[in-house]
Amino acid sequence: MFEKYKALTEKEAVSYAHSLPGLFAPDAELLNKEIGDGNLNLVFHIADQKSGKSVILKQALPYARVVGESWPLTLDRSRIEAEALKQAAKRVSSLVPQVYFYDSQLALTAIEDLSDHIILRKGLIAGTRYPQLAEDLSTYLAHTLFYTSDYYLDPQEKKEKVRQFINPEMCKITEDLVFTDPYYNADTNSFNPLIRESVESIWNNNELKREIAHLKEAFMTRTQALLHGDLHTGSIMVKEDSTKVIDPEFAYYGPIGFDVGAIVANLLLSYVSHEAHSLEPDKREAFQKWLLETSEKIWTGFETKFRTLWEKHVKDEIWLTEGYVDDILLQILRDTAGFAGCKMMRRVIGLAPVADLELIEPAEVRAEAETNALLIGQQLILKRKSLHKVSELTDIARQVLGKGLTVK
Amino acid sequence: MFEKYKALTEKEAVSYAHSLPGLFAPDAELLNKEIGDGNLNLVFHIADQKSGKSVILKQALPYARVVGESWPLTLDRSRIEAEALKQAAKRVSSLVPQVYFYDSQLALTAIEDLSDHIILRKGLIAGTRYPQLAEDLSTYLAHTLFYTSDYYLDPQEKKEKVRQFINPEMCKITEDLVFTDPYYNADTNSFNPLIRESVESIWNNNELKREIAHLKEAFMTRTQALLHGDLHTGSIMVKEDSTKVIDPEFAYYGPIGFDVGAIVANLLLSYVSHEAHSLEPDKREAFQKWLLETSEKIWTGFETKFRTLWEKHVKDEIWLTEGYVDDILLQILRDTAGFAGCKMMRRVIGLAPVADLELIEPAEVRAEAETNALLIGQQLILKRKSLHKVSELTDIARQVLGKGLTVK
Repeated sequence: MFEKYKALTEKEAVSYAHSLPGLFAPDAELLNKEIGDGNLNLVFHIADQKSGKSVILKQALPYARVVGESWPLTLDRSRIEAEALKQAAKRVSSLVPQVYFYDSQLALTAIEDLSDHIILRKGLIAGTRYPQLAEDLSTYLAHTLFYTSDYYLDPQEKKEKVRQFINPEMCKITEDLVFTDPYYNADTNSFNPLIRESVESIWNNNELKREIAHLKEAFMTRTQALLHGDLHTGSIMVKEDSTKVIDPEFAYYGPIGFDVGAIVANLLLSYVSHEAHSLEPDKREAFQKWLLETSEKIWTGFETKFRTLWEKHVKDEIWLTEGYVDDILLQILRDTAGFAGCKMMRRVIGLAPVADLELIEPAEVRAEAETNALLIGQQLILKRKSLHKVSELTDIARQVLGKGLTVK
Repeated sequence: MFEKYKALTEKEAVSYAHSLPGLFAPDAELLNKEIGDGNLNLVFHIADQKSGKSVILKQALPYARVVGESWPLTLDRSRIEAEALKQAAKRVSSLVPQVYFYDSQLALTAIEDLSDHIILRKGLIAGTRYPQLAEDLSTYLAHTLFYTSDYYLDPQEKKEKVRQFINPEMCKITEDLVFTDPYYNADTNSFNPLIRESVESIWNNNELKREIAHLKEAFMTRTQALLHGDLHTGSIMVKEDSTKVIDPEFAYYGPIGFDVGAIVANLLLSYVSHEAHSLEPDKREAFQKWLLETSEKIWTGFETKFRTLWEKHVKDEIWLTEGYVDDILLQILRDTAGFAGCKMMRRVIGLAPVADLELIEPAEVRAEAETNALLIGQQLILKRKSLHKVSELTDIARQVLGKGLTVK
């Protein structure tokens, strides 16, 4: 249909959708909305007014939409995303959107319309609980990560996958915006002027930055499993009884704790933000409790499922040494804490804020939530090597908000 | 000259060498010797009897020569080797053989003839000291490793190099023969029956195997720098005033300590072997002392040169945090000990023995040296996390041989 890449207009997107085999009837009446609210892509929602059938066309732009054409960005992320979704579908098909079609020429993917779901971040801001969330996310994590690791794959097949998912430009964004810029006075930073003192204390904390350097190196050099790579609550769609993980365009081989930590960080950002939100006090407390319990259940569910997969599949004589899987899981817990800490701090100090905090008014109240996020983030990093169980991780959050610790 | 791959006969190798541009005169009288004594390749030494000019043609066979055609092996290792030599030549051109020509069709490299050097292992067995060795090897290690790591390279360029050097089949050999098979009753093992008790105590040492599992995972998942990947004393050629590192066909992105550890392991194997060798007692003691001092000087030279490169080149705000380079170097020292431990044990228990030990007769005396190698190997692994300086590493060897420790 197109001989070379071009960003589709809304009209072209409709024609394109119409031409996809087996999707819409010849007489379909297609209505198109461009709904991309992310930072990087065009997203068209195309629905047939007659049959009710619909599809999402997601097209990568050759630059970062959030900044403009001055920040060029590889179209290869579209291939990475389509292939990562395919990988995930092999293991947890109900937890990712279906990919109907991938067009490498246009860097475009036709995927399942999830309009009956909402972005988890929005649900959490509204104080909505999702009873299925911990179960689904722990399954997603354990299965997508275990099955792409050396613990499961033939080592030669794994190395081919490492090659397939080398993703330099997207990783560079994370290396800069999560692991470097927030921790010194970088131009990309943007934070509430009221918290400058807290931010500067981070810039001056040598011990903290030394630990962040280790976490950055781990992100850059540990090919433990195929990660989603950007697993915040804006990359998860939910409804009461369904969870879908979307947008794996940052996928690459990295440390497992980076994905787990992304979820935990964003639940903890929600946790601190609700201290300031307008929910009634009782409802607020209960919701915050649910957030921490959900974080814990995601970890314990992940751990249990990972162990089950380990026991079923690991054949290597050395991997099978008693205690080794315990060491790995403990390392992942500590990595989770460390990466979660970076991800919390970068959302307060760095280029890409989160709505959970941004929506808090006035600025003084927002500053309090932001300061709490920074405190929790720092503690997660500095205390991670002494953690032994997930309740010690969530206790760091409880403690900063003065909520009393888990009974041990 | 050849349209598809074929293993060259000696006669074909001569014609091939003659046809290389700019090497031999039209009337050259070429004499060819096949000198491959390694496990994997054909190696032709081709010299012009008139001019004295010579060249080495190294051709990969599509199987492991040591086992035969039943063990197929990728010809791609020939590309890896040529490209790794080119990488190293950019930084330490005097420490690697010059590559004249690479023929991807034939999986053949034409390289500088180093017949005036001898294999370091042979020199060490004869008790020869090489005054330049520590200086040269520490330079080789610091420069080849630092300049291919994320500490130096643009992160995107580094990821492209990771892709370029993905080397699944060669890594698989190491994964099996260094990190797995020696530690259980595998078919590939082959050891002196007199040391069965020591070997079985390793097979039954859960704590040890758990640590080896971590080292194996580090080998498989940490893309810290472009390694040589097989840096034993058979991959190093020497003469009085020259050192050349050859044969990087196992090159891939892995943990820096694996290369440093390979050298240390082989110096320590020489150290234990000389306890049994026929040198006069005085000469023996002095040579053993030189071996440990050389190990220490390789480390301290590596550390000093790595720091110099770090100070000169590292620009990343987070890498520059005070103390971070100390952490990295300490981690490399501990990795060095751990990997050296595995490499010592595998040479005693596993498929590929070393001449240093193999040449010891009678079997009872050999068994003593082998047992010492196993003891040192185990201690290096189990004590590595408490090491702070290289003399503590070499003290492990001194202690096992009852030689008294370094004065601290």
